[in-house]
Amino acid sequence: MSRQSNVLDSCPSEIATDLSLRLACRKARPEGTVVDVSGIPVGGAEVVVLAGPCAVESEEQLMATARAVKAAGAKVLRGGAYKPRTSPYSFHGLREEGLKLLAQARAETGLPVVTEVMDARHLDTVCRYTDMLQVGSRNMQNFTLLEEVGRVKRPVLLKRGMSATIEELLQAAEYVMKGGNHEIVLCERGIRTFETSTRNTLDLNAVPMLKRRSHLPVIVDPSHGTGHSWMVPPLARAAVAVGADGLLVEVHCKPHEALSDGEQSLTPDRFELMMHELKAVAVAVGRR
Amino acid sequence: MSRQSNVLDSCPSEIATDLSLRLACRKARPEGTVVDVSGIPVGGAEVVVLAGPCAVESEEQLMATARAVKAAGAKVLRGGAYKPRTSPYSFHGLREEGLKLLAQARAETGLPVVTEVMDARHLDTVCRYTDMLQVGSRNMQNFTLLEEVGRVKRPVLLKRGMSATIEELLQAAEYVMKGGNHEIVLCERGIRTFETSTRNTLDLNAVPMLKRRSHLPVIVDPSHGTGHSWMVPPLARAAVAVGADGLLVEVHCKPHEALSDGEQSLTPDRFELMMHELKAVAVAVGRR
Amino acid sequence: MSRQSNVLDSCPSEIATDLSLRLACRKARPEGTVVDVSGIPVGGAEVVVLAGPCAVESEEQLMATARAVKAAGAKVLRGGAYKPRTSPYSFHGLREEGLKLLAQARAETGLPVVTEVMDARHLDTVCRYTDMLQVGSRNMQNFTLLEEVGRVKRPVLLKRGMSATIEELLQAAEYVMKGGNHEIVLCERGIRTFETSTRNTLDLNAVPMLKRRSHLPVIVDPSHGTGHSWMVPPLARAAVAVGADGLLVEVHCKPHEALSDGEQSLTPDRFELMMHELKAVAVAVGRR
Amino acid sequence: MSRQSNVLDSCPSEIATDLSLRLACRKARPEGTVVDVSGIPVGGAEVVVLAGPCAVESEEQLMATARAVKAAGAKVLRGGAYKPRTSPYSFHGLREEGLKLLAQARAETGLPVVTEVMDARHLDTVCRYTDMLQVGSRNMQNFTLLEEVGRVKRPVLLKRGMSATIEELLQAAEYVMKGGNHEIVLCERGIRTFETSTRNTLDLNAVPMLKRRSHLPVIVDPSHGTGHSWMVPPLARAAVAVGADGLLVEVHCKPHEALSDGEQSLTPDRFELMMHELKAVAVAVGRR
Repeated sequence: MSRQSNVLDSCPSEIATDLSLRLACRKARPEGTVVDVSGIPVGGAEVVVLAGPCAVESEEQLMATARAVKAAGAKVLRGGAYKPRTSPYSFHGLREEGLKLLAQARAETGLPVVTEVMDARHLDTVCRYTDMLQVGSRNMQNFTLLEEVGRVKRPVLLKRGMSATIEELLQAAEYVMKGGNHEIVLCERGIRTFETSTRNTLDLNAVPMLKRRSHLPVIVDPSHGTGHSWMVPPLARAAVAVGADGLLVEVHCKPHEALSDGEQSLTPDRFELMMHELKAVAVAVGRR
Repeated sequence: MSRQSNVLDSCPSEIATDLSLRLACRKARPEGTVVDVSGIPVGGAEVVVLAGPCAVESEEQLMATARAVKAAGAKVLRGGAYKPRTSPYSFHGLREEGLKLLAQARAETGLPVVTEVMDARHLDTVCRYTDMLQVGSRNMQNFTLLEEVGRVKRPVLLKRGMSATIEELLQAAEYVMKGGNHEIVLCERGIRTFETSTRNTLDLNAVPMLKRRSHLPVIVDPSHGTGHSWMVPPLARAAVAVGADGLLVEVHCKPHEALSDGEQSLTPDRFELMMHELKAVAVAVGRR
Repeated sequence: MSRQSNVLDSCPSEIATDLSLRLACRKARPEGTVVDVSGIPVGGAEVVVLAGPCAVESEEQLMATARAVKAAGAKVLRGGAYKPRTSPYSFHGLREEGLKLLAQARAETGLPVVTEVMDARHLDTVCRYTDMLQVGSRNMQNFTLLEEVGRVKRPVLLKRGMSATIEELLQAAEYVMKGGNHEIVLCERGIRTFETSTRNTLDLNAVPMLKRRSHLPVIVDPSHGTGHSWMVPPLARAAVAVGADGLLVEVHCKPHEALSDGEQSLTPDRFELMMHELKAVAVAVGRR
Repeated sequence: MSRQSNVLDSCPSEIATDLSLRLACRKARPEGTVVDVSGIPVGGAEVVVLAGPCAVESEEQLMATARAVKAAGAKVLRGGAYKPRTSPYSFHGLREEGLKLLAQARAETGLPVVTEVMDARHLDTVCRYTDMLQVGSRNMQNFTLLEEVGRVKRPVLLKRGMSATIEELLQAAEYVMKGGNHEIVLCERGIRTFETSTRNTLDLNAVPMLKRRSHLPVIVDPSHGTGHSWMVPPLARAAVAVGADGLLVEVHCKPHEALSDGEQSLTPDRFELMMHELKAVAVAVGRR
């Protein structure tokens, strides 16, 4: 029991009065928040799928993938223009050129676009082309970035840090909200553990815990959470069953040619099949 | 359900031929194993629920709980007679008296019984009263116990160690199988991580990974995997959605009076409701 | 063995040819690097102690502490002006006012000053007042910050991320070096594990591993690595014995009044005693 | 050495009176325990080195290694006769034949012998031949084994489990003590973390924390704590500097031919050199 925080244990209202989470706590909005991503509601009855390539690589790659995910039922297009990479010698994204391609894909498909912002100095540029700002795992505690993102009028996709506790993720959301931006979607994307057969350990416990402690919508990224494309569909089903409000999924028209994360990217065909499977699970848990 | 994902569909042969897993690897039995627990098949089309109290505490407690879980649809009764506890001053179970009560509950309800065996010297006694032997997380690498359990004719419920890798869990199963006992059900029950808001981090990635690498059935324990009774139903749903062959769930007729694990035990009413919810999810993923 | 990276195992020259670490690897400078911090060499025969308060709080607090650490033998003054804090409602530092106090303390004591830079936009200001730039644990993978820090002429103290592998820490150093700045001191400051009795788990294995793989100096922060002031002296001794080139230590003239990290800050008296103890250990391992 | 830090100097009474550690807590014996291993005191002023091969493999191997470690200053001979191995197909030790060889090595060198007991049923046999019983990491929570070991008159070397908290290690010691055997030496041997470049993460924080909370001697195993023979000497020095009462070190006369743990075993020459280095560190921290 000593490893378990009793504060979180019994009564949600006790939790909700935690002064360190004035804005993000469940009590601040007991009915829950629905975030509007250019017309797509995240946090409502429908489970929303955000899909697309890890990185924007070319017009051809992005358009082919965008059309495919739209056809399969995705509601938001994801794609990285600025890519945080462990090595300075890896591909770091097409930057503004990538943003322009995302805007073009949005124009063609009608899908709102989410992309990562890595630096406060890119914020204006990124806002110019996209509908939703992603704060990545490595920047979850980049507090000046959180503050800046809190000042813009754009919904935020806030990914849990690789070794961030649930408490720390909520505090990061509080940083953004304190700046005035309350349109935040939290994202569980796997945590770092001793297990080496998967890229991360997807922590689905986090979904009900976050939803109990906070009113913010919670989505799940089974691509980073597993690191293997063949594991994405079963974990996506589990995420819907556990109560996630949406999924963030990497899809690539040619995964074996991807410049990053090819091993965890679904083909459009496999993605379409997964979307079909997910519908049944969503209905089974009272969602759409 | 031919459109459902098959965890084996792209199983690399190099995994399957791993010489260190001669008996437990998927290739040794590509069609999968169905373990027979006194007439209850684990690993088949039906998702099986094993439920009951953490510890057998009294005739009244056990019988009330056993009747309730049977009525709600559980197929196997769980209950601890020998309890591994962190402190030497905690309640350690009723021992043989507890086994007798389990046998009595089986006689009354018809449910097969699973209980933990902590020591090779208790093996004969435990086998006398029960249908399935549980090897607990703390004993997953008690190799002499694994060898002894491998020599008896009784199905085994092998729980993953708190910090055991998937590879190590499979090697532990291999120990039992090498002894001649191939009737093993693997159990994911949460791993130890940095996160403190839950008792453990339930690793649902483990389910498809284990099923791909091995032919043995895999069940999930959302009670230990979360440590909070209110989290058990959503994680149980997720476990079914991810492809688990069954669930191990702690139920107590009066959780607040439980001598151990009361915080993570469901009431009979909540358990019944959960069973109802699970049916819909099982059907959605092509199971019963 | 599967949990162990064989790449790192046997031969240092194999390691050194790793193309992903062209500049940071040991082979690039087999004799090792000595970083010059305004006249103080880090990475040479002498074990260097960098000490001071977690945060600059007031002129009185900083000056009293600076004088005390200088008198006890510290060679560099540390102090935070921009403070990354988990909660947006915590004290976040005096910012430029804090930098001015640091410059004043340097003028009075002659100690070079190291302080954290959290944001590329603060870089010019921070450089104006200080001798060495600290990149904190939460920003170890803030890649655009690393790139900017790589462009200035100022030595860098790069702290290991809370859950960063040794490989990732070296890659972060490579980012800075790729920009042209090769004056980097690596800092082990404890990693996040399941253990809860200490704030972090100080990973002293990292010191010989980093020094084998890289030519950069390595120092240790026993204050964050333990979280308890009474543990700082023994772990500081261990760090010197294991081969660290220096120590980063939190000292506060009145720890119980500290606005942050009071529990892990030494009093000036205890710090002085520790410095005395460290001398004997340094001599025993052939250092000064 | 009155200027050396004393881990007890500010020991909070609330820790010491913890009812769950009646026998193992520091308050139960504030002056500390010295365990007598057939004439060798562990926990006194002298830092004691226990050394020898991972496994007893042959008479020639054991005798050559035993003579070498004795000549270099080791005070106790270690060697495994019953080996817990992850795979059932690995070498599991010579069993009673190995015990006989250990007794022979003791007769020839005069070194007391410590070996692992994996199963309560081997206890009588192991006691017949050896001076000290090792309970291995995988059995740290094998509670029935702990209870049996608590009933014999033989000092116990209790190794921390791979993912055991400090609290759990102390509770395991309490199990043994409750049985009547108070002669326990605790051993930190590395914990399981996300870092993969070393076999485990040696947690030297554990040494002062254990010594503060308990009166039992604490030793450190840098061989398992690192997994690389070249890392053993620096971490051994660190262990002495942090206040360990002894070291457990794997030495093999021909490491490249070892049937287990060859990569982390020192040659006799390197061991001798290390012993020389350790003397200087021990003196520097007021030990012998």
